Amino acid sequence: MKNILKSTLVLLSVLVAFTSCDNASSKSNSGALSSSAAEKVYVAPGEHDEFYAFISGGFSGQLSVYGLPSGRLFKVIPVFSQDAEKAYGYNEETKPMLNTSHGFVPWDDAHHPDISQTNGVVDGRWVFINGNNTPRIAKIDLSTFETTEIIEVPNSAGNHSSSFVTENSEYVVAGTRFSVPIPQKDMPIKDYKGNFKGSLSFISIDPEHGHMDIKFQLIMPGFDYDLSHPGRGKSHGWFFFTTYNTEEASTLMEVNASQNDKDFIAAVNWKKIEEYVNNGGGTMMPANYAHNVYDEATHSATSTMKKEVRIVNPLDVPGAVYFLPTPKSPHGCDVDPTGEYIVGNGKLSANLTVHSFTKMLNAIENNKVAGDAYGIPILNFEDVLAGVVEQPGLGPLHTEFDGKGNAYTTFFISSEVVKWKLGTWEVVDRQPCYYSVGHLMIPGGNSQKPFGKYVVAMNKITKDRYLPTGPEVTQSAQLYDISGEKMELLLDFPTVGEPHYAAGCPADLVKPRSKKLFKLEDNKHPYATLNEADAKVVRDGKTVHVYMTTIRSHFAPDNIEGIKVGDKVYFHITNLEQDYDVPHGVSMIGANTSELLIMPGQTETFLWEPKQIGVWPFYCTDFCSALHQEMQGYVRVSPANSNTPLKWSLGEDIE
Amino acid sequence: MKNILKSTLVLLSVLVAFTSCDNASSKSNSGALSSSAAEKVYVAPGEHDEFYAFISGGFSGQLSVYGLPSGRLFKVIPVFSQDAEKAYGYNEETKPMLNTSHGFVPWDDAHHPDISQTNGVVDGRWVFINGNNTPRIAKIDLSTFETTEIIEVPNSAGNHSSSFVTENSEYVVAGTRFSVPIPQKDMPIKDYKGNFKGSLSFISIDPEHGHMDIKFQLIMPGFDYDLSHPGRGKSHGWFFFTTYNTEEASTLMEVNASQNDKDFIAAVNWKKIEEYVNNGGGTMMPANYAHNVYDEATHSATSTMKKEVRIVNPLDVPGAVYFLPTPKSPHGCDVDPTGEYIVGNGKLSANLTVHSFTKMLNAIENNKVAGDAYGIPILNFEDVLAGVVEQPGLGPLHTEFDGKGNAYTTFFISSEVVKWKLGTWEVVDRQPCYYSVGHLMIPGGNSQKPFGKYVVAMNKITKDRYLPTGPEVTQSAQLYDISGEKMELLLDFPTVGEPHYAAGCPADLVKPRSKKLFKLEDNKHPYATLNEADAKVVRDGKTVHVYMTTIRSHFAPDNIEGIKVGDKVYFHITNLEQDYDVPHGVSMIGANTSELLIMPGQTETFLWEPKQIGVWPFYCTDFCSALHQEMQGYVRVSPANSNTPLKWSLGEDIE
Repeated sequence: MKNILKSTLVLLSVLVAFTSCDNASSKSNSGALSSSAAEKVYVAPGEHDEFYAFISGGFSGQLSVYGLPSGRLFKVIPVFSQDAEKAYGYNEETKPMLNTSHGFVPWDDAHHPDISQTNGVVDGRWVFINGNNTPRIAKIDLSTFETTEIIEVPNSAGNHSSSFVTENSEYVVAGTRFSVPIPQKDMPIKDYKGNFKGSLSFISIDPEHGHMDIKFQLIMPGFDYDLSHPGRGKSHGWFFFTTYNTEEASTLMEVNASQNDKDFIAAVNWKKIEEYVNNGGGTMMPANYAHNVYDEATHSATSTMKKEVRIVNPLDVPGAVYFLPTPKSPHGCDVDPTGEYIVGNGKLSANLTVHSFTKMLNAIENNKVAGDAYGIPILNFEDVLAGVVEQPGLGPLHTEFDGKGNAYTTFFISSEVVKWKLGTWEVVDRQPCYYSVGHLMIPGGNSQKPFGKYVVAMNKITKDRYLPTGPEVTQSAQLYDISGEKMELLLDFPTVGEPHYAAGCPADLVKPRSKKLFKLEDNKHPYATLNEADAKVVRDGKTVHVYMTTIRSHFAPDNIEGIKVGDKVYFHITNLEQDYDVPHGVSMIGANTSELLIMPGQTETFLWEPKQIGVWPFYCTDFCSALHQEMQGYVRVSPANSNTPLKWSLGEDIE
Repeated sequence: MKNILKSTLVLLSVLVAFTSCDNASSKSNSGALSSSAAEKVYVAPGEHDEFYAFISGGFSGQLSVYGLPSGRLFKVIPVFSQDAEKAYGYNEETKPMLNTSHGFVPWDDAHHPDISQTNGVVDGRWVFINGNNTPRIAKIDLSTFETTEIIEVPNSAGNHSSSFVTENSEYVVAGTRFSVPIPQKDMPIKDYKGNFKGSLSFISIDPEHGHMDIKFQLIMPGFDYDLSHPGRGKSHGWFFFTTYNTEEASTLMEVNASQNDKDFIAAVNWKKIEEYVNNGGGTMMPANYAHNVYDEATHSATSTMKKEVRIVNPLDVPGAVYFLPTPKSPHGCDVDPTGEYIVGNGKLSANLTVHSFTKMLNAIENNKVAGDAYGIPILNFEDVLAGVVEQPGLGPLHTEFDGKGNAYTTFFISSEVVKWKLGTWEVVDRQPCYYSVGHLMIPGGNSQKPFGKYVVAMNKITKDRYLPTGPEVTQSAQLYDISGEKMELLLDFPTVGEPHYAAGCPADLVKPRSKKLFKLEDNKHPYATLNEADAKVVRDGKTVHVYMTTIRSHFAPDNIEGIKVGDKVYFHITNLEQDYDVPHGVSMIGANTSELLIMPGQTETFLWEPKQIGVWPFYCTDFCSALHQEMQGYVRVSPANSNTPLKWSLGEDIE
């Protein structure tokens, strides 16, 4: 056994070594670029980019907003990780966003953003994204570019085949990557096979507000569910998931989960299951999971712990789930704009397999079944096969579409993007990536209507592409022009976090939705101070509430006395500005938390627990005016047993 | 009194309103750009930028590394704020870096980076940067691009006139912005005048390792010390600090600290004080402050709490400190490459005042003193004046130099960069900024040898310059070509965090220093596992140490049993890779901490306290190879009273 392992490892090492070679030709390649590449990516001062790209930060846990074609970074939206700059996960308002059944979890691995759709077209309302590690799905509102909801996914682990949206945003779907005991229990790991399970969660989206609710979880065999995409057009109502580790191995997976020549794409008829559930089907199962909602009116989040979830056994809904054999350990599971073709990117396969939705329906109708896995029917490979792209590259991972009949597939091992034709399966172009490309993105690529002007390749290795920054080098993406017959590499652009996966759309879809400020009159924060005259300090035992305001260029109050060592002091700060782009920031010296960065019309709160007597300053941390440096104040902290009265002032001495 | 305040506020509001108007001409301006701007900023795929720019994140607390002329972001170096992506401030190794006398402080306001110098020229060894809020100075090592030391500055508040380096890196200097009681005590804020003090700290830099140590603190009158710069060349041995609030007001500072027509530049002869101190001068004063050092060999930081600091009363060292009258509330305090001119950027002044070092020495020699402030001699304005740049703009903040006899000053209120000539004081060019520029940077600008090809303007307002991202818009910088007689605006580039201040240098100065990996043989982490065969799990009561390794594409061990609810499990993970750019990442589902992101040859540790029984997976979070998805493992958690034996395995079942 050990020898077999070793020889397999040697083979794999060769593949690995291939990916990690420096590509010596990169510099000479650049010389061959047309001089117009510079003009094509240049967005002159004052001009705007044509597309938004929402690129996940991968292991940063966040979602980044870039412009295309410039590759410029406009915002890092905090989603699953604390952000000390923006106070996300530090201030009292957003701490509940990171609550889970395991307690406060300040990080996650953010993977696959997807934009909401209406009638199969991206609509620019919301972006959904999954946290892999502690399974969660988040929703970002594209009027504020803030995370407004996070729902934990119970009975899941390595929440990877997520978070893709159906064509009318009926559901955002989250599939587990690692199977686990469901429900969790203390059992030997070696008993994995047959006992560990996967789950595919269909989370409904409220059409008006986007609120998420787990409609049902489909409990599946203990495979790894890697990626997924919705059907569209003719295949709307279905969802497709790649699987690997159909071997159900539970140790040294790089070898043991790579034995089968074919794994599966799971085809799920969610419309059928929805009907079953609407008629009372499924079982309510106890499950603890957090549902965290940020309310724009109160500028505050609340976390609710849910207690049960509806589970569905696929065997109880005949005709709802099928397995399509797919070579080998497929990663991406991609559906073309017509909904007819399902591409299985078999990462250890020499060829690219494309399934036909029409053929799949025919096979189902004719009951042509090759066998079953834990009772779920397996169709014949040949019966569902649309075509094969022969030997297009090594290590296919992900395919996107340009809406003009072309597909673009990334190859990790041979480090390239390959363009091929749907239907004829012929390769028409290939371009190298620097280096080891993972996913790629064409704006609108996961919809009926892609905007096939650019493709972004998201790379896993960077090495020598930029000025070095020590052992940790930047992550990187590359932009190609795909408007012509041949692709043209335009730009290398570095990214914050891993550029794991992306969604994009035309800028005009989002720009009109983007808010410039929060109206003060709509501020329903329970501790808001809407007029400077109402600023005050209120003591309640050892708890003190400071109702403070900011406006250029002072705090009200700016001096406070009567705070004592051992107090819990809540600073509730309302930014009274009502102009675009005039935030104020604040923190206390020695505070064991982050600053606040308060947008116009907003209220935020930090907790300060003074430990030392003295007179301690605070100040505005966001350069707000010519007199920003003068925007400061002092808090006098007296001993716990002091009689210093609670007083505050602005512009006059405290007597 | 209130009416006077109000009328002053109206005047100030006019200034403020000026800065916040959208500049309607921005779009039409861009049309006038030469088409070559695109070519000038374009760095083709595979090519490298010419300069490094180290731009502080301001209220993000971090330091960002950009390339010029492309404006691309290569790394966000965590300095004063936690970073969940890189585990900074979360893993056991770096938590001590954020320790202070106030406890763990997970954020700061990072302001003024400065590159170390040798013989008055930037040498690319270290970058120093100040934390404003909880006064600290950090050192970043440019071989690893990591923060390797942070020293807290006692007797300080709003640590702003920092962290500038003398011309042989003898000292990094940190001046307090807000005066406070020294030592801190419980006293009325209204007693500020005469009782609150400022402090100017001279922190010695070990020439070999860069280790920092507070040599002495100069205790100064209770003004606000805003910015500072070292003398150089002829003025080497002196340090210059701008002051404001010489009124010693303590409330509504935007009005009360703007009354005097002139404030001061404080000129400090640190060589003289150094000699005094070396001869036993000054007084040791009790003071608690943290000194945190990261050791590259152990990959770990330690925090030491220091107990005393040497203070110096300037009156005890005659001839060491002088005040130079300077209009009005000066911000930047900038010294030209020859060391002769000291520019006071009077932010509320109509003109720009330039002092002469030679004249200052003459005035001192001839004892021409106009008066004193708390015993410190005030020189005559006319005696030290080199010249005045007449009405160059509104709201001057900061001046840099190109080494060719030109100076470049930012004007916040009139939103422009103005080029003028040293010696003749004539304005030769001006270019608008979008909008409200704060500081600016020419690579090497704070040295005897600037590299005057580009200037970067760092703006405070962005508004409509990029695609909108809700109420919070990106921060922004602008790049100008200054190689010709007239400046040319080339590029708007967004920044992460506030682009508060920057230092830059030619790329060739740093590239040869940049390490590609950490040698495994040099790894002295106490819990390192240098061979896969040595991987193990050790229980010590309720504490469990997991000695784990990573290499493409597995963990050793990958399965662990015998962990119990209530355990404290430390995962010490060593990345055995010895190739460039092959980090591995890891976290446990539900862990109440961040991931680890482990560079080749490095060991990092996270703490996991399992709360629920079950079988819980972990996985590699950094896409490392074609079989990255298979790089995973499981931990079985049993009840606290269970007898499940502690076992672990790789590739074989745990029996």
